[in-house]
Amino acid sequence: MIQTISLQNYTIHIGAIWQQWNALLHSLQPSKIVVLVDENTRKYCLPMFSENTNFEHFFVIEIPSGEQHKNIDTCQIIWSKMMDANVDRKALMVNLGGGVIGDMGGFCASTFKRGIDFVQFPTTLLSQVDASIGGKLGIDFQEVKNSIGVFANPKAVFIEPHFLDTLPAREIRSGFAEIIKHSLIYDAQQWQQIQAITDLQQVDWTHFLVPSLRIKQQIVEADPYEKGLRKALNFGHTVGHAVESYFLQSERPLLHGEAIAIGMISEAYLSYKKLGLAYIELEHISQFLLRIYDEVIIPNIAFSWLIEMMKKDKKNEQDLINFSLIHPIGKVHINQTSHWVEIIESLHFYNELIPQTIITN
Amino acid sequence: MIQTISLQNYTIHIGAIWQQWNALLHSLQPSKIVVLVDENTRKYCLPMFSENTNFEHFFVIEIPSGEQHKNIDTCQIIWSKMMDANVDRKALMVNLGGGVIGDMGGFCASTFKRGIDFVQFPTTLLSQVDASIGGKLGIDFQEVKNSIGVFANPKAVFIEPHFLDTLPAREIRSGFAEIIKHSLIYDAQQWQQIQAITDLQQVDWTHFLVPSLRIKQQIVEADPYEKGLRKALNFGHTVGHAVESYFLQSERPLLHGEAIAIGMISEAYLSYKKLGLAYIELEHISQFLLRIYDEVIIPNIAFSWLIEMMKKDKKNEQDLINFSLIHPIGKVHINQTSHWVEIIESLHFYNELIPQTIITN
Repeated sequence: MIQTISLQNYTIHIGAIWQQWNALLHSLQPSKIVVLVDENTRKYCLPMFSENTNFEHFFVIEIPSGEQHKNIDTCQIIWSKMMDANVDRKALMVNLGGGVIGDMGGFCASTFKRGIDFVQFPTTLLSQVDASIGGKLGIDFQEVKNSIGVFANPKAVFIEPHFLDTLPAREIRSGFAEIIKHSLIYDAQQWQQIQAITDLQQVDWTHFLVPSLRIKQQIVEADPYEKGLRKALNFGHTVGHAVESYFLQSERPLLHGEAIAIGMISEAYLSYKKLGLAYIELEHISQFLLRIYDEVIIPNIAFSWLIEMMKKDKKNEQDLINFSLIHPIGKVHINQTSHWVEIIESLHFYNELIPQTIITN
Repeated sequence: MIQTISLQNYTIHIGAIWQQWNALLHSLQPSKIVVLVDENTRKYCLPMFSENTNFEHFFVIEIPSGEQHKNIDTCQIIWSKMMDANVDRKALMVNLGGGVIGDMGGFCASTFKRGIDFVQFPTTLLSQVDASIGGKLGIDFQEVKNSIGVFANPKAVFIEPHFLDTLPAREIRSGFAEIIKHSLIYDAQQWQQIQAITDLQQVDWTHFLVPSLRIKQQIVEADPYEKGLRKALNFGHTVGHAVESYFLQSERPLLHGEAIAIGMISEAYLSYKKLGLAYIELEHISQFLLRIYDEVIIPNIAFSWLIEMMKKDKKNEQDLINFSLIHPIGKVHINQTSHWVEIIESLHFYNELIPQTIITN
């Protein structure tokens, strides 16, 4: 079975994708396929991909997995291998992996010889729900996430649910955060269904993926260049991105969704404080997220660094810190600014929810 | 007096530009202006720019001049300074300089936080005629010119003829090559006028610039993403780019137009050989170009390196070397492939035109 979501410029195929993929290859007739993988997707996904792809000219580029490699140095390695292989402008790049592969591979394709075609094969739940729509491509620069990049659309996105079978539980949880976010900002009814989930291993993700992608579709198509409405998707991400950057340098980096879960608690608190989100709703959100995600303390000494990081975030104009907040659950309000004192209060609120056997700092 | 050329997405202003520039600033209301200069334009152009710009929030980034700095390392310096200055997405980048500043500054703007607005103030004749239209932005990578980049349009282009007054004669000659090219591929009548030029210092460049820009406009608007017709503009550039790259590493680098002049002689020879361009026309082209440009021998030992370079050029699909050739003067033919044996013949033809007191190799 296959489901499709047709966007303005391309289609997302979800399910039994291989026939559609080969049809696209047949119509594009690329001079070569460049497949970007990391050590995990080379092992767990490339065999299935190769077996189901009817095309001869195959060129595989492997990069090390992990957000810490999503930088300009790795781009130079990718471009360099493409140059050495004489990749021409009629080549097609296939990004087979999670968000790092999709964002960086898409950026490298969009800038190689001023842009070659690319397709996305997201292999993690996070990249399936988050990176399939929106055309946001890029890399981290100077510790700021996605600060260098472009907007560009793939020729198509192919979501093969079997890729999720090989994914660690922690990766599934990370992707789940974006599904939770979509329900909190846009779909109170799905939020009810989500709260009923007790065992993540029993979930049929296609069931949540398709409605979640449709929410993102509505928002992105109304605002492709993130001039306004699209900021709705930033709920949990202003604090979340900063938290993610902070822990990226620690011995125990957080996955994106884990950081966003913390960000959603902090920003639900700001929603309570600034917009009057009901305290009981704040409690429901916090309790549900802390049931799913590991309890991670944010050291008080990190607070000022986090605030500086939020100031550098690309959604801010001048020195104001911009948020997308919710009230009630299922309804989002963009362009809500907060003062750093309130943000620090929200971080304290989060920390105090965590049982602290040892007080950090 | 001011002349304007209206393109699909922006306008080129030529002449007394300052009123139009301030009007644009007033309508855009950017949060900040980031002005990219090199040591020359800081000295010769920035004072006039500052004096005529009614805007307070000014941030100047200086990079060293020269094609050898048009690379990813310099981009990282530019991005880094923009990050440190908290440049936000409502900022406007002003590229005040020649082709390197325009190409690289436009690329940095188009990728910073996934793209901020930019305007071009080309200050050399070459960049005024060549970089004002087309949206081709980028940097050199692994010795291949413009191999990393994007297509993106500025908000406007402002051509201030007084900037040319401070330009060395050699830079003027370099820019003249693109005007010559436009006449050879599209305007036999202008080619007659051009041949009558005896003293470059006496020329009113605006007279040639506007028709030349209109030729480029016609070609680019018919083919914005260089899928076909736009290849017409590559006349002289297939050999020329390789020659430019070769001399970039020598002690005596050539300016872009100087390399393109050599490329035009070589490719006029191919036009004679492959398409039947009249030998007398080949002679006129060669003689005129050698009257204007320095006589530079291409060492025979460089030939195989040049051929490899042409193979890597982004306009080639697979291993064929693609040319845009002319026949007769004023009419261009794209997608003409040549064998390396013929290309080497054309390089010998060029070399033999040069009086050789010492035989190199």
